[in-house]
Amino acid sequence: MSALIEKPPGVRKPSRARSPNGLDLADSFPGEVIPLLERELYHSTLHHAGLPTGLEDALRHAVGIPHGGGRRWRPLLALAAARACGGDLEDALGVAVAVELTHTASLVLDDLPCMDDADQRRGTSATHRQVGLSGAILLSIGLLARSAELLGRSRQGGGEMAGVWGRCFGLSGMAGGQAVDLLGTFRKGGCHRRLHRRKTTDLAAFAVWGGATAAGAADTTREALWRFGEDLGWAYQLADDARDLDEDAALGKAPGGRRPAAQSIRLLGRARRRLEEAPGISSEGLALLAGLGCRIVGAPGQTPRLQPGGLPC
Amino acid sequence: MSALIEKPPGVRKPSRARSPNGLDLADSFPGEVIPLLERELYHSTLHHAGLPTGLEDALRHAVGIPHGGGRRWRPLLALAAARACGGDLEDALGVAVAVELTHTASLVLDDLPCMDDADQRRGTSATHRQVGLSGAILLSIGLLARSAELLGRSRQGGGEMAGVWGRCFGLSGMAGGQAVDLLGTFRKGGCHRRLHRRKTTDLAAFAVWGGATAAGAADTTREALWRFGEDLGWAYQLADDARDLDEDAALGKAPGGRRPAAQSIRLLGRARRRLEEAPGISSEGLALLAGLGCRIVGAPGQTPRLQPGGLPC
Repeated sequence: MSALIEKPPGVRKPSRARSPNGLDLADSFPGEVIPLLERELYHSTLHHAGLPTGLEDALRHAVGIPHGGGRRWRPLLALAAARACGGDLEDALGVAVAVELTHTASLVLDDLPCMDDADQRRGTSATHRQVGLSGAILLSIGLLARSAELLGRSRQGGGEMAGVWGRCFGLSGMAGGQAVDLLGTFRKGGCHRRLHRRKTTDLAAFAVWGGATAAGAADTTREALWRFGEDLGWAYQLADDARDLDEDAALGKAPGGRRPAAQSIRLLGRARRRLEEAPGISSEGLALLAGLGCRIVGAPGQTPRLQPGGLPC
Repeated sequence: MSALIEKPPGVRKPSRARSPNGLDLADSFPGEVIPLLERELYHSTLHHAGLPTGLEDALRHAVGIPHGGGRRWRPLLALAAARACGGDLEDALGVAVAVELTHTASLVLDDLPCMDDADQRRGTSATHRQVGLSGAILLSIGLLARSAELLGRSRQGGGEMAGVWGRCFGLSGMAGGQAVDLLGTFRKGGCHRRLHRRKTTDLAAFAVWGGATAAGAADTTREALWRFGEDLGWAYQLADDARDLDEDAALGKAPGGRRPAAQSIRLLGRARRRLEEAPGISSEGLALLAGLGCRIVGAPGQTPRLQPGGLPC
């Protein structure tokens, strides 16, 4: 009645997740982690045999199979958190895949003509360009549905994870943040701003918290990791903003990204402290999680730039 | 971090759920059930304070608050199943609301211009006519997200329910059935047909199974109720088809709905037997569930018509 995989998995060579800027986020992980994650991602895209031709292929393209997806930053956060809490990576694979599928669903929706109207994503055509508007919407629903399946079936904390995940992607989280973004009601400093921020922070926080939950971590550890994930997610967004503003500045359009970059650095410092203060985290786990943070680069006197690869010490 | 209700609930007079054909499905239930269900439905529509103006109102309209939603057939199925398994109605309210929100999400998406392109729903403007295409898509995501929250927080079987619910609304279930419908790959008798049918049957089956799960029913009981729900859901759809074909026949367009109506009656008979054979169902519960089936009406010699209000004995 509820078999996740309804036809033989098929074997494809899993892609090697490498960041667009050449930095390999998996350097700190054991060698088998990325192929394992990619294989689980592939399995998660298999559905009922009667699905219309092309829809399952588009689903795999959206997830970045086989041509290579994004950096797999969020699923690696989940796996690192599980390892940091003394858990088995296998136990957290479902959460890791669910987080990547949920992220992919948000990208498919963001790219729609009625939202950000993007034609390209992850080095290929955006999903709606491949299967049309209705196909893309149904596909994003399918990605969320598969996430629920994976979370619900976790050996530990499945119900709790499904509930918190619901809050993260709904109108009090990511979808609400996107609504604030699109429907033009953003006001600085108010509750709109807080909701808008959740578009970025909630899934990063959930990834870390979910990995810890699947590993059976204590409540105090999970709460500390949630706050770490929130800071990390927002720092990441600010670093992105700083890069965009610097590009505009080079064209003489804007004052540059010095301010968001400085905010990002402050947040990364706080994230580092949260991690060090989190109870029950192994030193190996701390190194893994810190390695998935952002590294400050740039000559003195220039706007500091941030790129993935390590929290500032 | 995960409070379901983030502002005071406010008090609105709950609508009295009454079927469009005048038949009150709640006749067999204690008097307090419908107001309790409507109040929970209202609470489920409350979100983060920063949500853009109009979106929460549109959400309530979509759910049928306060002007009255559909028949609330699916949530009443969940509550009846819980009662039939000796459970407390309060324990199954979350499942009941989740099922209605998931159904509403599917209606919001079905009505989009790129799908069935409908302007009206539940006696008012379709959601996309109120908040635009992007607003309607985000709102449907919000409805699914809130469903996950409610299922995940169930006192019993939250993880299992979230997992099975994911399979029901995804590409191996409702979304897959809608894809088969829209993308024109429907072939009679094959796996396309089986997937297409799930668009209708999966949520009815989940409602009954979920109510039983929240009540802590045994696996054998839940499996029997799942099959009952599948038969009931398909019989309901066939009865609808029969009505449409009879309307076409009156205009000289089609041969009438005698054949799907006969199929529907056969299925309702089987549903009744499944219910009687289900282990651990109280006689009160059997009467409640049977009362939410379909009743055959029509003079001898005419195409039999079916309307909600009782399985054939």
